[in-house]
Amino acid sequence: MSFQLPIYHAPDFTEARFCHAPNVSFAQAERDGIAPEHYHSTSIYPEYFKIAGQWVLAEESRMDCVVVMRDDGRLDTVEARNLLAGDKVILGRSEKCEEGIYLHLDGFAGEGEEGDCFAFRTGRSRETAFSRDYDNLYELLLHERDHGNVLWVMGPAFAFDADARCAMQLLVENGFVHGILAGNALATHDLEAGHLRTALGQDIYTQKSQPNGHYNHLDVINRVRRSGSIPQFIADHKVKDGILYGCVTKGVPFVLTGSIRDDGPLPEVIANAYEGQAKMRALIRKATTVICLATQLHTIATGNMTPSFRVVDGVVRPLYIYTIDISEFVVNKLADRGSLSAISMVTNVQDFIVNVAKGVHVMK
Amino acid sequence: MSFQLPIYHAPDFTEARFCHAPNVSFAQAERDGIAPEHYHSTSIYPEYFKIAGQWVLAEESRMDCVVVMRDDGRLDTVEARNLLAGDKVILGRSEKCEEGIYLHLDGFAGEGEEGDCFAFRTGRSRETAFSRDYDNLYELLLHERDHGNVLWVMGPAFAFDADARCAMQLLVENGFVHGILAGNALATHDLEAGHLRTALGQDIYTQKSQPNGHYNHLDVINRVRRSGSIPQFIADHKVKDGILYGCVTKGVPFVLTGSIRDDGPLPEVIANAYEGQAKMRALIRKATTVICLATQLHTIATGNMTPSFRVVDGVVRPLYIYTIDISEFVVNKLADRGSLSAISMVTNVQDFIVNVAKGVHVMK
Amino acid sequence: MSFQLPIYHAPDFTEARFCHAPNVSFAQAERDGIAPEHYHSTSIYPEYFKIAGQWVLAEESRMDCVVVMRDDGRLDTVEARNLLAGDKVILGRSEKCEEGIYLHLDGFAGEGEEGDCFAFRTGRSRETAFSRDYDNLYELLLHERDHGNVLWVMGPAFAFDADARCAMQLLVENGFVHGILAGNALATHDLEAGHLRTALGQDIYTQKSQPNGHYNHLDVINRVRRSGSIPQFIADHKVKDGILYGCVTKGVPFVLTGSIRDDGPLPEVIANAYEGQAKMRALIRKATTVICLATQLHTIATGNMTPSFRVVDGVVRPLYIYTIDISEFVVNKLADRGSLSAISMVTNVQDFIVNVAKGVHVMK
Amino acid sequence: MSFQLPIYHAPDFTEARFCHAPNVSFAQAERDGIAPEHYHSTSIYPEYFKIAGQWVLAEESRMDCVVVMRDDGRLDTVEARNLLAGDKVILGRSEKCEEGIYLHLDGFAGEGEEGDCFAFRTGRSRETAFSRDYDNLYELLLHERDHGNVLWVMGPAFAFDADARCAMQLLVENGFVHGILAGNALATHDLEAGHLRTALGQDIYTQKSQPNGHYNHLDVINRVRRSGSIPQFIADHKVKDGILYGCVTKGVPFVLTGSIRDDGPLPEVIANAYEGQAKMRALIRKATTVICLATQLHTIATGNMTPSFRVVDGVVRPLYIYTIDISEFVVNKLADRGSLSAISMVTNVQDFIVNVAKGVHVMK
Repeated sequence: MSFQLPIYHAPDFTEARFCHAPNVSFAQAERDGIAPEHYHSTSIYPEYFKIAGQWVLAEESRMDCVVVMRDDGRLDTVEARNLLAGDKVILGRSEKCEEGIYLHLDGFAGEGEEGDCFAFRTGRSRETAFSRDYDNLYELLLHERDHGNVLWVMGPAFAFDADARCAMQLLVENGFVHGILAGNALATHDLEAGHLRTALGQDIYTQKSQPNGHYNHLDVINRVRRSGSIPQFIADHKVKDGILYGCVTKGVPFVLTGSIRDDGPLPEVIANAYEGQAKMRALIRKATTVICLATQLHTIATGNMTPSFRVVDGVVRPLYIYTIDISEFVVNKLADRGSLSAISMVTNVQDFIVNVAKGVHVMK
Repeated sequence: MSFQLPIYHAPDFTEARFCHAPNVSFAQAERDGIAPEHYHSTSIYPEYFKIAGQWVLAEESRMDCVVVMRDDGRLDTVEARNLLAGDKVILGRSEKCEEGIYLHLDGFAGEGEEGDCFAFRTGRSRETAFSRDYDNLYELLLHERDHGNVLWVMGPAFAFDADARCAMQLLVENGFVHGILAGNALATHDLEAGHLRTALGQDIYTQKSQPNGHYNHLDVINRVRRSGSIPQFIADHKVKDGILYGCVTKGVPFVLTGSIRDDGPLPEVIANAYEGQAKMRALIRKATTVICLATQLHTIATGNMTPSFRVVDGVVRPLYIYTIDISEFVVNKLADRGSLSAISMVTNVQDFIVNVAKGVHVMK
Repeated sequence: MSFQLPIYHAPDFTEARFCHAPNVSFAQAERDGIAPEHYHSTSIYPEYFKIAGQWVLAEESRMDCVVVMRDDGRLDTVEARNLLAGDKVILGRSEKCEEGIYLHLDGFAGEGEEGDCFAFRTGRSRETAFSRDYDNLYELLLHERDHGNVLWVMGPAFAFDADARCAMQLLVENGFVHGILAGNALATHDLEAGHLRTALGQDIYTQKSQPNGHYNHLDVINRVRRSGSIPQFIADHKVKDGILYGCVTKGVPFVLTGSIRDDGPLPEVIANAYEGQAKMRALIRKATTVICLATQLHTIATGNMTPSFRVVDGVVRPLYIYTIDISEFVVNKLADRGSLSAISMVTNVQDFIVNVAKGVHVMK
Repeated sequence: MSFQLPIYHAPDFTEARFCHAPNVSFAQAERDGIAPEHYHSTSIYPEYFKIAGQWVLAEESRMDCVVVMRDDGRLDTVEARNLLAGDKVILGRSEKCEEGIYLHLDGFAGEGEEGDCFAFRTGRSRETAFSRDYDNLYELLLHERDHGNVLWVMGPAFAFDADARCAMQLLVENGFVHGILAGNALATHDLEAGHLRTALGQDIYTQKSQPNGHYNHLDVINRVRRSGSIPQFIADHKVKDGILYGCVTKGVPFVLTGSIRDDGPLPEVIANAYEGQAKMRALIRKATTVICLATQLHTIATGNMTPSFRVVDGVVRPLYIYTIDISEFVVNKLADRGSLSAISMVTNVQDFIVNVAKGVHVMK
């Protein structure tokens, strides 16, 4: 049985509560980066705003942002720090039409079996049964490869392991990866493995530490910086495999954001956290499925920017978000968002990614 | 490349330190279950005792026990509580011949690549690379199926998951399981799954909770007790799959030990903890590889009773012990034993067991 | 402000649903240890059964048990394995009067501030604020010392630490401990500390390992066994401090239950898991507050046997149950019971117990 | 007994190995931010370099950096990205004089009791005894308040808790805090508590969620941004307590570094990760004790920049670094550095900070 997208049910705006609701109100941002008091803050759910008698969806949403009406009537969901003086910001802190704002929680409800299979997601732990989640995910990925956009958010851990790195490369090369969000460490370890077969000086298959192996890590950073870019380093040093190798050869975009833990950084790494957020969100705006792997920092950052829905060709569909981590604490951080389309699994991401590569038949 | 057992190098007893060592001394146990003061306590390593000028190995060892010389000269490694008044107990608390006792730490050292691949095992975490450990384990299991004895120690978690339960059944049915140690919960959940497709009332594939589903668990216990035994329950209720189903149909022995957490218990469960230890050790005495899965209680109990070597047909070989758990705290508890043949992996056991079943080609 | 017990509101049995309900039905246990099909299983909440037109509370309840009517009309909550052939067992699997059974979920609701302060207990993690929980607990303990019964369930961890062990001893000696449930390890480590100042051979204050220190542990066990009992060992070896020393000198009862992990065991340890449960439940039947510290095994065992209420002198009051552990996984296992009177805190129990001893002013 | 600094033993440079060693060699950085091949990379230990026959210590070291000789002969330890074309970079990858480089591992060894009490620090877990570590820390802090510089690295968790926040404020106000490193979240939660008594909308004492409470968090950020700075916000909104309130009123410096998880950010937060590192290192250069609390990101970043020693008035002394976290995984990440002066404790930081405040007598 192949994957079927659940159908979205828009609110019935002919109902009395919608008809009788007031138009939403606005205030101008007085200064750049400052919202007016009583601004409305968005959620991960579809939200509609009554403007001149019409209920309008803010299409590219994310949580904890303000909504700005542009001159052409379009609604932009904007981080408060990105406001410009004069922007028309929506006001109101109620969500059931009282102030012309409607938050639509259950647009995908009542979808029967298929909808339901993604429904009950509370209290996930090491003792949860994940067989069906895996099967659902394989189907979803096969669908999304051709009809969606899958964004992977990756911690450094699985560049340490030969099989996991290979599985990810195969997923990239076979079209299951439309973008990657990661940090300096994932990229550095992956390139060290491609260049010297080690990660932090330890062989990624045998686990043997090389003599003076910690220099491998630092040398790779220095050489990439000398080459001037990751693609140039791959060319200069004849790197022939790896996750970034796959991305570069297949033209898959990646965004590497910096953190205070970084060595280096590599040339592509974005030093400014908020510029990094903007670049991340640019990829997230296209994503229909997001898979977060063993990185608390990037997972929470991504979760902040990822709504529960996506509008594709005018149609609202779910945006699936998976969190895979060995720590219940981390997966439950994101699970708290309470979205029906958020699925978390508690396991080692090395095993997870090999399972996925086998489950979609790109690895034996 | 197939698995090769490392060769054991016995000490060279012609060396001066062995020749000049005194014979070991003894004292009689004054009462049942009480060791004489200054008794010698065993470790997981091979230990030799000089008796009448000859160095004798205690063949079936385990840690924290006393050594008793039987009338026929055989050395038994005995839990102190199992001493009988009059037993001749070895004395001495040094291990380098000073008192006629020699602990042989490095009998398997210097074995080159193959030996080495099991060598470096410190500091295992979620960020350790496990690819080679998996490959080693697949080879080991293929070897042990035909030439060894594989004992599995199982926590309840993976009876909750359809794929994991299926993988374990296939391992049993294909000869990779020579014995199982577990508790009341694993058995109950597995039988509930076979009888009603649920574990604790939740469908093991869809995760859906059944109405009044917690009665499933209690009813299964009550019905097994009414049947009088697990095999009779399987027959009475036409159970057709599962881990215990596999064991019963294939004649694989299992030992279920009770704990104060138990409901029930099932008829086969051994209520007395020390009688349970004895039954566990009876299976461990035959094992050449032990694999502990997601159970702190049973893993530590098993680790206590499992030496690092086994004498098979007069030849000393390693006894491999694996610990698989999602918690670094648990795996490092056992890793502290410091044996070269103890390997730990940090992951969800559901993924682990499916990997193993695929790795030895009993599951697709 | 001192602690006030919330007032229990019994159901109003003059309501129609109670009047119109049928009497509960019974079936006889056909054999010892086997419940009749369709037996009713208890919860942690107060449950009433309609018998000859009267609604009767099962006073000493616990979850997952059957209810037996004695000849004198009293209702006993009995583990199914303890049934005797001929026992009159209540039938029924509904809880809203349909079969004469009523489960009273909210008997303590609506108590305003005081009730409320124990109310919201979901999703506890390392990031939860615990200040008020501590303050509530200090008040509760000061109340319970004089008007209640506080049962402590203890894992081995804090016999390892000098301050924690001292804090617990002071709580015992100052009347805050009416009983202790623990295992062989807690008792052994505590006695080793009293006898030799070490736990597992490591100094409990400086953490220094003694030469051949692992013998300290084994020697203590052997010597207690030779003495024949813990009190005799304390006398024989002039032990002058510790948790068990406090219990023995103050006459505080303790129940030590065995497990398959045990060395020894000490003479007082109950080998049979189900006999151990019975002894544990005997102390639990008196408890009005239960505090579980860093032991998954004993905590879950105790949780299974502990209802959310206690009848004292004919009055129903809450039975408070605390779980303290460093692992969210463990505390959430018990939190799932969903009782208003279950509080969990995520921290190291060493710090917890020192805080408590200072909070009730028995330690500086 | 009060704290005594261990005495540093410099190498004896009259030994043959030092006399016969070659002078260290150099190469110029060809371009900004790129090290020459075969550059030497520093560790956390004191390292000496033979220059014109003299052994010179790189005084302000940190790990994974290059060493640059300035025109005046001073040795700077510089992040490779901060190199300027033409900088004279030390070459060499041996550490025992072979290339004129000597790494001095054991400068503080042999110090008897006092040295030793900080010595054995491996394998820390929830079951380690921490009593003596606390006592040592109290003594150390009392010493450092007057004769050292204590830098605190703080995760957001304990701004959630009323007691912990109060304890930290008291430590600031009583001179135990010479600097703070943190992120946007700690500062935001602390200011929300000072402004509205909540953190993320939840009362920091009662844990009660306020209606629409998530706006509290966002409003605080917006208002601080409107005020233009944290001190101005404190003035504008009459904030009267908290960690940052303490810092501002006492003139204690804090560095807030941004991350991709951030809302806001607050005006003081440094957006650029590498500029942030530079500001962090500026405080670390003064620190003699560093205490890292429940933040994986900031702890590892700080650990990267913190050597094991500090030169104060020409004298080498230990730089103590503590890591406190509830996760063994996090504390062991830093413990891997293997320094004698790195101490880790596994507990909830709320309890830890209250213990410390009481231990140095600023809180009752």
